[in-house]
Amino acid sequence: MAENKKNTKEKLTELRQDLVTGDWVVIATGRAKRPEEFAMQKRAIVEEDPNKPCLFCDPTASGQEKDVLIYNTKDGDWSLRVFPNKFPAFSRSRVPKHFEEGPYFGMDGTGYHEVIVTRDHQKQIALLNKIEVAEIVDAYQDRYIDLMNKKSINYIEIFHNHGREAGASIAHPHSQLMAIPVVSPYVKSELDGAEIYWKANKDCAYCAMIEWEAENEKRVIFENNDFIAFCPYSSRAAFEVWVLPKKHKPYFERILDKEKIELAEALQFSVNKIYKALGDPAYNFYIHTSPCDGKDYPHFHWHIEIIPRTSVWAGFELSTGIEISTIQPEVAAEYLRKQ
Amino acid sequence: MAENKKNTKEKLTELRQDLVTGDWVVIATGRAKRPEEFAMQKRAIVEEDPNKPCLFCDPTASGQEKDVLIYNTKDGDWSLRVFPNKFPAFSRSRVPKHFEEGPYFGMDGTGYHEVIVTRDHQKQIALLNKIEVAEIVDAYQDRYIDLMNKKSINYIEIFHNHGREAGASIAHPHSQLMAIPVVSPYVKSELDGAEIYWKANKDCAYCAMIEWEAENEKRVIFENNDFIAFCPYSSRAAFEVWVLPKKHKPYFERILDKEKIELAEALQFSVNKIYKALGDPAYNFYIHTSPCDGKDYPHFHWHIEIIPRTSVWAGFELSTGIEISTIQPEVAAEYLRKQ
Repeated sequence: MAENKKNTKEKLTELRQDLVTGDWVVIATGRAKRPEEFAMQKRAIVEEDPNKPCLFCDPTASGQEKDVLIYNTKDGDWSLRVFPNKFPAFSRSRVPKHFEEGPYFGMDGTGYHEVIVTRDHQKQIALLNKIEVAEIVDAYQDRYIDLMNKKSINYIEIFHNHGREAGASIAHPHSQLMAIPVVSPYVKSELDGAEIYWKANKDCAYCAMIEWEAENEKRVIFENNDFIAFCPYSSRAAFEVWVLPKKHKPYFERILDKEKIELAEALQFSVNKIYKALGDPAYNFYIHTSPCDGKDYPHFHWHIEIIPRTSVWAGFELSTGIEISTIQPEVAAEYLRKQ
Repeated sequence: MAENKKNTKEKLTELRQDLVTGDWVVIATGRAKRPEEFAMQKRAIVEEDPNKPCLFCDPTASGQEKDVLIYNTKDGDWSLRVFPNKFPAFSRSRVPKHFEEGPYFGMDGTGYHEVIVTRDHQKQIALLNKIEVAEIVDAYQDRYIDLMNKKSINYIEIFHNHGREAGASIAHPHSQLMAIPVVSPYVKSELDGAEIYWKANKDCAYCAMIEWEAENEKRVIFENNDFIAFCPYSSRAAFEVWVLPKKHKPYFERILDKEKIELAEALQFSVNKIYKALGDPAYNFYIHTSPCDGKDYPHFHWHIEIIPRTSVWAGFELSTGIEISTIQPEVAAEYLRKQ
């Protein structure tokens, strides 16, 4: 462990660019393992040791980094806290240095990697009430606003992994935030597509979807004053759900307090339906919003995508980027509504 | 099962286009499950029942579709056979019908989905000899050439899933081929990137990589007359390996007989190194080659990508398309060479 910490300081994470596609990959040397460890990891189905204290129930005692944000309850206990990830995929440092090797380009993986932890070890988002979920949304916004103007930060990714099949390595409910120097290929693809649609149709593609779905209803699972949740027409995964502000809003960080409660309600409702329908499956959700790179994105419409992990990506998906879903989104939505 | 078969005939797989990005997803209704089955599937860790006969050891007896290709040994037994997938993600039919729903576009998932099976239940590619692997390459080419000129087929994806974590649902070693009406987003991204590089540098991006890697050696794991295998500079996954023809070749299907042996040697060597280094991990490999859509792709360079599955895609990867690898490709290559 001491050696691991030393490595974290010695080596920076690297961002390396694919020479052909221009996409970036992260070589997270701060989390590096020795080559021998990959085989061992594969063999071990890592289960929580019930005799070991949870790292996130008492973050201070378990040696986590110092909080950057803490919300307290009236009785003085904490209800939510945010601290830097102990083994960050991106790490704070100077302005990222660019480097070359032969025909290739790379840069230091400078950035911020934080963990957003709620108090109760047992209560996942599906089981919280909307006020408790609104507090999580509040923390997302708080941290976003604090980091968005930092030097060299161009995109902030906020996401939540639930369950081992979704990549959660600690069972205690938590979200993560990564503030990074590049705009990711998926987000860029949405930004570009939304801009093309905006120019061609004098309208937002997401607004067009929302209008159709709200009228059509067959894929909708929830709606309140400010938000709508539906299974998208071109769902990448079975039981995928998107949560979107009904009005055209490019920037998540500008969400108002009253909207946070509405978002919390829509998000908790959707996650709870998935929880019931699939029997507490692993899932991920993440926010796609406009970059914080100083440019304007009037054509974009921020939203949350919830991806239940009921299947494994195989060769076809890895090779093509085309996902194969085995249920029609309208059938999935009908089933979710029934729960 | 009878009901499943009926569904296969009644409903066609659908390709649905993402309104924003233009990417396609497959809604494979031919493989559809009832909504209730998704939860059950999650709970069950499906293991092979040793009392049940393997579906691929005797494909005829187990009710597989009729062979479209069969290679026999001198003693009259079969050594390799290819037949349509019983539950295809794409299915043969008429010219695909396009359809609209509100703002959305979709089309029938017309195509071919075949399974390429080798004789020995126990012998995965890592354990075959190069002549046996060359026979698999031969079958890939045979089937490619037969399908490439079919109406409405614009891309042919050949891939191999090994192990459950890589999406293999049948343990008996097999590859798959999907001939589909659209060029996938990942391949398109490589084609576009290669064309931009070609125009800017009067050179192929893959040839530039090969030249650098061959000279530099630190990421190379194998080289023979016609092929080179290395861990790419911007590896998406730990221990990722690419196998490329050393000369500039846009079209896999034009591979010569003598080159097939060389490819088989490079592929088997690479897969065997991964097998030893990681203790028989799950992995996928796939061929990226030029589309068969009637256009020329002089700037592209076909290749095979091998992706060991030592980690799970979590929220960050799903959200961004940026993968986090925890080992430097140069360190991975050194470790693979040592096996």
